[in-house]
Amino acid sequence: MRSYLKFLSWMPAALKMPEEELISHAGLDSAVYLRIYLIGLKIFVPIAVLAFVILVPVNWTNNTLESLKVQHSDIDKLSISNIPLGSKRFIAHLTMAYAFTFWTCYVLLREYEIVATMRLRFLASEKRRPDQFTVLVRNIPPDPDESISELVEHFFLVNHPDHYLTHQVVYNANKLDKLVKEKKKMQNWLDYYQLKYERNTSKRPTTKTGFLGCFGSKVDAIEYYTSEIERIEKEETEEREKIMKDPKSVVPAAFVSFRSRWGAAVCAQTQQTSNPTVWLTEWATEPRDVYWDNLSIPFVHLTVRRLIIAVAFFFLNFFYVIPIAFVQSLANIEGIEKAAPFLKPLIEERTVKSFIQGFLPGIALKIFLILLPSILMFMSKVEGLTSVSSLERRSAFKYYIFLFFNVFLGSIIAGSALEQLKTFLHQSANQIPKTIGVAIPMKATFFITYIMVDGWAGVAGEILRLKPLIIFHLKNFFLVKTEKDREEAMDPGTIGFDSNEPQIQLYFLLGLVYAVVTPFLLPFILIFFGFAYVVYRHQIINVYKQEYESAAAFWPSVHGRIIIALIISQFLLLGLLSTKGAGQSTPVLLVLPVVTFYFHKYCKNRYEPAFVEYPLQDAMRKDTLERAREPGFDLKTYLMSAYIHPVFKGDEDDEKFSIADESDAEQVLVATKRQSRRNTPVPSKYNGSETASLVETVNDQRL
Amino acid sequence: MRSYLKFLSWMPAALKMPEEELISHAGLDSAVYLRIYLIGLKIFVPIAVLAFVILVPVNWTNNTLESLKVQHSDIDKLSISNIPLGSKRFIAHLTMAYAFTFWTCYVLLREYEIVATMRLRFLASEKRRPDQFTVLVRNIPPDPDESISELVEHFFLVNHPDHYLTHQVVYNANKLDKLVKEKKKMQNWLDYYQLKYERNTSKRPTTKTGFLGCFGSKVDAIEYYTSEIERIEKEETEEREKIMKDPKSVVPAAFVSFRSRWGAAVCAQTQQTSNPTVWLTEWATEPRDVYWDNLSIPFVHLTVRRLIIAVAFFFLNFFYVIPIAFVQSLANIEGIEKAAPFLKPLIEERTVKSFIQGFLPGIALKIFLILLPSILMFMSKVEGLTSVSSLERRSAFKYYIFLFFNVFLGSIIAGSALEQLKTFLHQSANQIPKTIGVAIPMKATFFITYIMVDGWAGVAGEILRLKPLIIFHLKNFFLVKTEKDREEAMDPGTIGFDSNEPQIQLYFLLGLVYAVVTPFLLPFILIFFGFAYVVYRHQIINVYKQEYESAAAFWPSVHGRIIIALIISQFLLLGLLSTKGAGQSTPVLLVLPVVTFYFHKYCKNRYEPAFVEYPLQDAMRKDTLERAREPGFDLKTYLMSAYIHPVFKGDEDDEKFSIADESDAEQVLVATKRQSRRNTPVPSKYNGSETASLVETVNDQRL
Repeated sequence: MRSYLKFLSWMPAALKMPEEELISHAGLDSAVYLRIYLIGLKIFVPIAVLAFVILVPVNWTNNTLESLKVQHSDIDKLSISNIPLGSKRFIAHLTMAYAFTFWTCYVLLREYEIVATMRLRFLASEKRRPDQFTVLVRNIPPDPDESISELVEHFFLVNHPDHYLTHQVVYNANKLDKLVKEKKKMQNWLDYYQLKYERNTSKRPTTKTGFLGCFGSKVDAIEYYTSEIERIEKEETEEREKIMKDPKSVVPAAFVSFRSRWGAAVCAQTQQTSNPTVWLTEWATEPRDVYWDNLSIPFVHLTVRRLIIAVAFFFLNFFYVIPIAFVQSLANIEGIEKAAPFLKPLIEERTVKSFIQGFLPGIALKIFLILLPSILMFMSKVEGLTSVSSLERRSAFKYYIFLFFNVFLGSIIAGSALEQLKTFLHQSANQIPKTIGVAIPMKATFFITYIMVDGWAGVAGEILRLKPLIIFHLKNFFLVKTEKDREEAMDPGTIGFDSNEPQIQLYFLLGLVYAVVTPFLLPFILIFFGFAYVVYRHQIINVYKQEYESAAAFWPSVHGRIIIALIISQFLLLGLLSTKGAGQSTPVLLVLPVVTFYFHKYCKNRYEPAFVEYPLQDAMRKDTLERAREPGFDLKTYLMSAYIHPVFKGDEDDEKFSIADESDAEQVLVATKRQSRRNTPVPSKYNGSETASLVETVNDQRL
Repeated sequence: MRSYLKFLSWMPAALKMPEEELISHAGLDSAVYLRIYLIGLKIFVPIAVLAFVILVPVNWTNNTLESLKVQHSDIDKLSISNIPLGSKRFIAHLTMAYAFTFWTCYVLLREYEIVATMRLRFLASEKRRPDQFTVLVRNIPPDPDESISELVEHFFLVNHPDHYLTHQVVYNANKLDKLVKEKKKMQNWLDYYQLKYERNTSKRPTTKTGFLGCFGSKVDAIEYYTSEIERIEKEETEEREKIMKDPKSVVPAAFVSFRSRWGAAVCAQTQQTSNPTVWLTEWATEPRDVYWDNLSIPFVHLTVRRLIIAVAFFFLNFFYVIPIAFVQSLANIEGIEKAAPFLKPLIEERTVKSFIQGFLPGIALKIFLILLPSILMFMSKVEGLTSVSSLERRSAFKYYIFLFFNVFLGSIIAGSALEQLKTFLHQSANQIPKTIGVAIPMKATFFITYIMVDGWAGVAGEILRLKPLIIFHLKNFFLVKTEKDREEAMDPGTIGFDSNEPQIQLYFLLGLVYAVVTPFLLPFILIFFGFAYVVYRHQIINVYKQEYESAAAFWPSVHGRIIIALIISQFLLLGLLSTKGAGQSTPVLLVLPVVTFYFHKYCKNRYEPAFVEYPLQDAMRKDTLERAREPGFDLKTYLMSAYIHPVFKGDEDDEKFSIADESDAEQVLVATKRQSRRNTPVPSKYNGSETASLVETVNDQRL
């Protein structure tokens, strides 16, 4: 028993770190990400209490289900199904729908305010950073007489004469990037063979020059890779010179820096010329958040790309079952035999046959679902967003829509999104909420199971890091050759906002939809949120690393999706009640979505600007303070090379360390148990738990 | 014959004035307003030609209607109804739908570009005007230590140190306004009685002090009004002093002026503080375009007001028939007899009875429709917009929605909007376009009649100015007492964008919907657009006066509504064809609305900023030019009193003249035949038509 408790000792440790320190340790993004779980608890704890005190007795003290002699579980007895048609008791449910809506809105409003304040305080307390002074300018129009660099300088000297300081053009370094990556790979192979040779000096290692080292003539490996590296290095130097010299390698985009934050804020928020398709300005994101490949997309292309992706996503969402069904139809015995008759003798063997029959049909769907976040991310990249953080937000939005149609609605009305589309097109607008609403109480048991299997087990898997463990071992076995490779394979990566957040949103949706209908589901949601909060707090402190800092720019979309869930829950309750002989409640319930929508509009107007714009007052205040503190600071040198394409910066690791060093200087307080030097570099003072968590131990042992 | 031609001689005169001159004479708003008719011609002339060359033969060479032996007119033989079910000929209609869509989009794109260029050129060529340097600041937060004026000065001195010049606070002058109006009324009465006395010096005129001069004690009229005016003048002076002294009469809004257009452009486009509900900045409109009453509405109220108005407009749109039906039910003989039995003997008289039976039921609806634009304008005012031009745009939007549901859909599926709402709620999403689409060919004859009765006759009535003539005579008979009164009753007012533009949009909708279905309707639309263009060109040059200049800020909404009409027409064609056994065309047709929508998005991104923002480059260019031309100009004095509430400016007429004087100085080229001194003050060089138009003659004779 004691050892079991000891095993859980990471929990208080994870909860101990105060939010302030969490922010400086893991960034505001991570700290605010954790608040999504917290907001789940804040919304659903009072709702659950109220529902159990009021709705459960109201539901329980009927015997509709018994008198109807339908088969039912005890969960159904606690749900709205147990109320007879047209009963006056529905007034309780109506009142609760109002109470839950107002409580949810209240929590959302409070939370929006808190997060906005956190963001503003974070931005105000930040040290000097290049992005505070810099604006990303895109779609610079071509000029026959001037190079892009001269053009930028002239334009801003004329139009922002008192504020313009310097600028950096963006090079198209895709080819160089490829060369650098190739060199790195070759270097890795060289290291591997040198290591091999050191262990066994008797025999010089050999390799083949052809594909994957399997074909072609046999050569001495060390010599071969040394010469290859030399060759690539030469090419690289040539390419570097070419990029610097050739004006064509400069893309029509630039990072323009200003003397003051005020000047940058002004430039980022205003329109520069009367043609709004050229000289587009926006805040530059952090250098590490820039998505370099998309900086040079012309304006017209953006609309076309968005149209294509919108259509593609529509088909992905509603028609993805078709290719999968097609693959599944191929992936049966007869299909394979038909397509490749020569495989027949192999397939007909018993073990292979049973494997194909049992495994293949499901695997196509599984592979699709695993690949889905990457597909969505690819789609977002095609859309032309210029920062990694906005790419993740956009992918999250797409993933949420996918989950809503294919998991939520798909489970309720038990059909693929394609069938739903047909149903929706052929049903009247007031019939749709009824169709879905009626099915909701029946699916409560299913969703309780879903919460346990997907939610609870997912969180447990997260703390055990099962998936990364498997992937690590696969990589270790197949790919890892040197210490550096292993280090890379160990890399836990970021928390993955684009795939995690939509999954949390699904639980918000379930909780809000079932709050009035089947309150029995709420405790399961609560356990999920509580458990996930503790686990992810631990993971964020000890495992994940931060790739960029967007200062919680994702909060408006988190807020928006909870509002959407709330409105959906209101419409579904409306549909359900109108089939329960409480049709006269419809006007009363229709008030809720309208009010909720206007509440959302109010919040959007009130708080969203804090996540989009940088107010002049704050900029001016920070400028004045800084000018008083460091009057002689050489800003120009500081900004000179802040926004340079990563390949020009030299080794990737060096870059990472320089960033780590910066944060190092800021605060030496933070506690972690990470072993990898790629992760946070400083120990925490809250390193109270004596035993490292199971995961970490497992991870460490693998080293 | 010759006299008839002579009578039409105003037409070439109206068309003669070049656009440049039209702009300087009647303002850019009016010139661009005329382009709406022109765009109608540009869209529908080629469409009509194409439809008559291709679609009409395709439709005509069938005999479906004859073989079905349904009753049909020749118009139906030319329409899509004459094509048999599932015919291959529908390919022609599909192709035409594509051609019409692309042509419409092309014209819209070109026109958007032209109007945007016109606006930019207009703004660039404008002389110095106070609004170029001024920003309207609203929601200034209260400060216990400082007055609003001090607060504004300190805030902008800190946050725009290099650019802030001066500011003007806004006074709550509602009471003073009332006093000024009362004084004016009294002055008018005094003039009237003095005139009366002059004509007949034998008898001093008397009046009664009570209600409407009908009750109370008899007094000498001239003495009474003189003393009344003195009393009000005293009150007025007191009120003026009170407003100037009392800090409570300053509303939390101010007009802040900057040293340069650049400074104003920056302030108008940026967020000032981290709280986006205070210190809200936007471009100040022209002084005469400011709607003073709405300047002090707090931020939270705006959301609530919008919600209330949205709900109210929803009910107005869909449920307005209910109160009218109620009034109609009262306004019959039995109803009145029941409500007021003492009227029975009067009502039972034959003439009265037939009047009530024939006239009353319709009059409730008629009165409602006449009042509708005013009701919508009132709603927009409640929403809290701060300029007259934006109020008109918002009202136009509401009126368009009303016309769409109650005239267009109401005529097609022949039911009130309320019944439509029921139908739509109870029909599936793919059924709705079918229901409407099927009815469309059948209603062609009705709409042709409608175009002739409402469109043609309306335009003819406009050139004859029948309605204003009647209203003028009514006013002349009941209200006019002095020359000044008559002058005011003669005032033709503005062109009334809020009620006229939505009506034009209805014709765009009809044209686009019927282009493929019943091409025979197109010539009627063409005649409407051509006729209306000439007439309104004449009216704008000679009759209407301009109240404000928004530099064509309404164009994005005009463009947007034509796009909406286009998308509606595509969906309706889709619905129609799917009932005609051409269901396989659905995917082909579904492409159109998607592409159109993205075309709209592109246009919005490409051109709308030109109508919303003021680009820094243009501001800088104008600043530099002006600084070079007039280096010593005293801007502060110039701006000092530009934005003062009209009541502080003294007599309204004086103000009007000062504005007229300004334009006077600019250009003395413009030609009109207006007689009233309230209208344009300068004669035109194009005064070629020897006979003044009928209208003008009629108007003049009444003087």
